[in-house]
Parts: sequence; C-alpha cells; structure tokens
Amino acid sequence: MKVYLKKNIKNRVKNGHPWIYENEIEHIDGTPQNGDIVSVFNHERRFVGKGYINFNSKIRIRILTRLNEEINKSFFEKRIKEALLRRNPKEESFRIIFSEADNLPGIIADKFGDYIVIEINTLGMEKFKNEILDILINTFSPKGIFEKSESSSRIKEGLQESVGWIYKSGPELIPYKVNDILFFADTLGQKTGAFLDQRFNALSLKNYSKDAICLDAFCYTGNFGMHMLKFGAKHVTFLDYSERAIEVVNITAKKNNFKNYDTIIGNAFDILKSYDNNSKIFDIISIDPPAFAKNANSKANAKRGYKEINLRAMKILKNNGILATSSCTQVITEEDFKNIIFSAAVDAGKLARILFRGDQPYDHPYVLNILETKYLKFLLLQLENMKGV
Amino acid sequence: MKVYLKKNIKNRVKNGHPWIYENEIEHIDGTPQNGDIVSVFNHERRFVGKGYINFNSKIRIRILTRLNEEINKSFFEKRIKEALLRRNPKEESFRIIFSEADNLPGIIADKFGDYIVIEINTLGMEKFKNEILDILINTFSPKGIFEKSESSSRIKEGLQESVGWIYKSGPELIPYKVNDILFFADTLGQKTGAFLDQRFNALSLKNYSKDAICLDAFCYTGNFGMHMLKFGAKHVTFLDYSERAIEVVNITAKKNNFKNYDTIIGNAFDILKSYDNNSKIFDIISIDPPAFAKNANSKANAKRGYKEINLRAMKILKNNGILATSSCTQVITEEDFKNIIFSAAVDAGKLARILFRGDQPYDHPYVLNILETKYLKFLLLQLENMKGV
Repeated sequence: MKVYLKKNIKNRVKNGHPWIYENEIEHIDGTPQNGDIVSVFNHERRFVGKGYINFNSKIRIRILTRLNEEINKSFFEKRIKEALLRRNPKEESFRIIFSEADNLPGIIADKFGDYIVIEINTLGMEKFKNEILDILINTFSPKGIFEKSESSSRIKEGLQESVGWIYKSGPELIPYKVNDILFFADTLGQKTGAFLDQRFNALSLKNYSKDAICLDAFCYTGNFGMHMLKFGAKHVTFLDYSERAIEVVNITAKKNNFKNYDTIIGNAFDILKSYDNNSKIFDIISIDPPAFAKNANSKANAKRGYKEINLRAMKILKNNGILATSSCTQVITEEDFKNIIFSAAVDAGKLARILFRGDQPYDHPYVLNILETKYLKFLLLQLENMKGV
Repeated sequence: MKVYLKKNIKNRVKNGHPWIYENEIEHIDGTPQNGDIVSVFNHERRFVGKGYINFNSKIRIRILTRLNEEINKSFFEKRIKEALLRRNPKEESFRIIFSEADNLPGIIADKFGDYIVIEINTLGMEKFKNEILDILINTFSPKGIFEKSESSSRIKEGLQESVGWIYKSGPELIPYKVNDILFFADTLGQKTGAFLDQRFNALSLKNYSKDAICLDAFCYTGNFGMHMLKFGAKHVTFLDYSERAIEVVNITAKKNNFKNYDTIIGNAFDILKSYDNNSKIFDIISIDPPAFAKNANSKANAKRGYKEINLRAMKILKNNGILATSSCTQVITEEDFKNIIFSAAVDAGKLARILFRGDQPYDHPYVLNILETKYLKFLLLQLENMKGV
C-alpha cells in the first residue's frame, strides 16, 4: 500500500526524521489497516521509505527504513545488530534498543544483568513482538524477559497495558550491576526505576564524594546516592516521595553493605525548604526530578519548578559544595537548563562552575535529525559563594 | 585606590563576572598605575571587590576577589588550594590554574608529569609572578617550570613575550602520561600542542577503534590518533600542516611502540577532498581544528569553515562510521556547533547520531557566570547513510 506526501511540507522527513503527521499526507492508495506496513512516496512519487501506519495517531506513519526492503524478522535482526555495534558488549547492563534513535520507533529494550525488560508503545511495533522476542532470546539467552508496556500512548494507539513476564520468569526485583554497585530494577516500579542513562554521569561524583555529607533528592531507587556511598561519602540521605522507591533503596543499600545513610519519604520541595529553615547544610546534593513537563504547553511551569528546586538546593549547600543536577524533560533544552541554573545561582549569590557536563550515553543515542531523541541534561556544579563564606 | 562604577551598567559584574570595561567606570579616586590593585565600588558606594587595573586594556579591571582581603602571597595560596580541590590529585598531568575560571584572571598553569608550564597574559598577574612561582614550587616540587607567555594580548597589556625555563630546566619535549599513553609537551610548539582538555574526550573512542582504519586530521601532536592506536586501530593517518607537529607525532608513536600509522604534512581541507576524489574511506575520523574565529566578527566565516571540513570528513566515512569532531572556538556556541554538524549531515545524506558529547574537564571548568570560560565542544558521532550503503 502506498502513501503520497504533500508538496509543501517541512523538510523534517527529508532530513531524516521518521514521523509523518496526518496533515502531511496527500493521499493513500489502498486501505491499510492500523499497524500495517506502507510505502511512502514524496509528491514527485519518489520513494521515501517504509513504515507502519496508525489512523488513531497524529503521528500517522513511523518510518522504519529508507530502503525498499522487506519488513520481517531479518530486518529486525539487522536493526538490532546495528544497534549493538554502537554499544559496549562487555557491559552486562545497557539499553539494547532505544526506539527512534536506533531506527526502531515504538520499542525500548533494556538488559539488566541476566534479564531483559521491554516496552512497546505502538501498534505497528506490537505486531512484530514475537519476531523481536525471538531475536532477543537468541542473541542474549536471557533468564527471563519482562514486558512493562504501560505508557499512556498505548491507549491512543488502540492498545491495552501489558505488564508481566513474557519469556520464562524472574524476581520482582531484578538484580544488575553498574559501576560495581548492585542495583535492582523494580518490575513493580514506575519504569523499573532503573535509569541506565545516568550510569556514567554518576561516575563524575568520584572525585568529590570522599567523607562528604550528601543528599540524594528525588533519589528513586538510589542511583546517585549509592555512587556517593561507593565513593566514600560520610553520610547520604535518600529522599523520595515514593514509599516503594525507598523500600528498594533500603534493600539496595543493605545488599551493598552500605551503612552510612538514612531515608526520608516526602516532598523534596518541602524538605529542602525545611533544611534551609533549620540551617542544615550538605557537601553534595543530587537533584534528579521526574519530568516536570511532558509537552511544550507546560514548559513555563517546568522552568519555574527546576529553578525553584535548584535554588533550594543551592541554599543548603556549603560554600564550594557540589550540586549534581539533572533534567529529563524533553521540552527543556540544554540552553534552557543552563539558563535556569545560572539564574538560580545568581539569586543564591553564587558562582556556578561546571566540573562535568553529562549527557545521554551511547546506548541512549541522540540523533541530531530527530530532535525528540534528546531529553537528558546533567551538570555537576561547584557553587561558590560570591561574597565568601 | 578606589574605583566607582556607573549606575546604569549591565548586571554582568553584579552576577559574578570579573571584567570591568573602561566605559563602566564612573570615576577613580587616586592615580593607580597599570597593574595596581584597586578596590571597586558600585554607584551606591558599596564594595564590589578587588582587582588589578590596566589603562592599556579595554578590560580596565579584572576582579580577583569579592572579599575585602589583601592580595598577597597568602591570597594566591588560598586560590591555588581552592583550584586543587576541584582537581584530581591522583592525576599526574592536569591544568592547575585556568585563569578566570579559577578566579585567577591572566594566568594558566599546566602540570605535565614532573614539569609545569605557565602562561601569563596580563600585567596585573605578571606582578605576582614570583609569589605564584614560589607556591607552585612548594606545592608540586617540579623538576622545572617553563614559561610560555607569547599571546598577542601581552603586547596590548604592555608586556613583552617571555618564553623559556624560569625554574631549573628540562627537555625541549616534556614527557607526560595521559590515559597510559606517553605524550610530549613541545616547549617550541604552539601552546605546547599538549591539549589536556581533550584527554577524557579521547577515551570515547575506546569502544569503536578496534581494527579501524582511522584519520586524525588537524592532529597536532597526535592526541586522538594515539588513543585510536592504543585502542587497537588497524591504521591511523596523522595529518597536520605543521612539520614540527608531525615530528613530535613520529617521536610519540615511536616511544609508545605504535607502528600502524603514517603521517602527512598538508592542508586538511585539500587532503580530505583528494581522498573523496579518490574514493578513499575511513572507519573513524577525528577533526580537531584550531580556532577558526577569534572574535564575533569572524563567526560567519568560522561557521562556514566548520561546516565545510565536517562535510568533507562525512563524505569519506564508511556507512555507520565514526566522526570525532571538535571546536575550540569560543564564539561558536554548543547550539551553533550542533546546527553546523546537522546541516553537514543533511547535505551528506546522513543521520548524525551522537554517541558521546564531551566538554571541558574539571580542570578547565566553565563558570556559567563567565561566558568566556566556555570554548570546547566535542561530539562523537555515528554517521549513517539515510539511503543505506
């Protein structure tokens, strides 16, 4: 079945972006069903690529290839092989497939030690679930594969939630090692709580953690705080609003034999303010909040949220203390984020010195042709009082 | 002596920037001489800080401190101690002092193994040269200190070039290790050719260099190419216009017992084009050109230069090959650089996938309050043919 694009559309598709919106389509030959593979042509009837169509989605077509090739098991084998060439096969835990960034829109797969967790977000990809499962099983011989497909976009695509073991089975908390620390991916948590995208950024704390009094705010399952403890922190306070997350933090700390820590269940905005009121200060603070904005409409709110939480953190940092600050909100750009941090620093009367700037690692690649593949920002800052101590 | 600032000046100084331009000064009490320390007050006669003045420079004053403290040897001891807290003392080679970014405008000091190389760019700092030398000698017990003060800004400051050993002496080529590779800082080269700021970025090549055919263009003394060889490259071509640089490359490769390489002295723009004409292709290319622009006026030209050289590199990369591309031009922002690379990728018909984005390391910090401290951009990209091989 063939889809023809309008003449006067943006260069986005031509420049490598895989999404075709409903209003960019001139006409369709045939009557494709949702999830079917279609061939896309431009207004001059030149072949653009092949992808899957869904009339329930404003993103009407997601292109899988720019070649005129069959979309079958061999195709997905080739794609996963290509993705692995970008990875480091010596790592035991990494993201195997990162959706559009690996030319496989609609699927994410993470390897956590001996297990794999997958997430499918589109009907078009759902149709190839069995083929992809086969390839993952043959390639990695995992002890089990867990599906965690619960994003709201599935409903729009005409799919239901699908959560559970789909190949063999495994523990509720999947153990995996990162940087010689034992972590757990929580099959019951939000997105497993195991954020592999921050595993290299956390290493930047190494030079500064020794003997430090630390706060890991929005700690989730404890990525940054566990690294601080590993690197010799004197004490870490783990703070999260989720009881379940703190439960996993306690299990993780215990299994790693970390003892110098406590945990708090609560709202980070409130708790940081109360520390300020009580003149409690830290040597190192990590702020890794969930996405404050999911779309451009809420951008102004998100900016306010980031500024406020970072300002509160800066106020309870000692002079020349370290702030590890993250943003995973796609609508906040790198430039926005730097401006927000600078603005907070000025309000706090501080110089903000970047000691390390992190990004998405090679298994969460950012394709310049596909803006939406960029979401993570990470800065390791030293905050110096402008007027001395 | 006291300097009073005008009322309606930008917030730059208030927000932490150390430069005061001639047109921001309301009046001066007393008759300070070039290089003298002055106290700066705002229009309300509130103390801003202390710095050194120079009537030969449009940057009339550079602030050293926001506290009302004596500028003497103890002051510089404190500053250098603070700078070292940001560094990793276990490294044998690193930048000890990075000028404004370490609150010491006008001086740069690099430790290369047992030796130190310093560069002084302002008269105000020149006046404390002996104190700073003493501190460096006491702190690091170096075998020798070499001064390489040859920037054009010295002339404007009313200083002469000053190049040579100023404490003990050492070899023409100073040996130092980075990432277990032996390099040489060239006392006769341009800025020694030993660019410590790229030492972590080069590590990103590790996952991709094995058995690769590589090109290190604008190689200077060979930073990226030596890392490729260390990481198992099948062959590296080192390319630079400077005969002296290639001489150092040959010595470095020999000392490291690297054999699979050749060297070319020539213009990278021309040579990359000739490779394209002869259908020569590479698995990995590094492009690390000198600053194409020194000021905002030449920005448009610099953009053209970066786009052209990156496009030429992309054309001689195999499908899914790796481009390690750098820019050290201050006037080209991160956003500019990404746009340039994206534009080149589109022209080359490629998807540009960022596998690693590098930055200045912690010993070349970037202070958000001082925009000028940011200069380095580094991207490790995989370039995928949009239309297949």
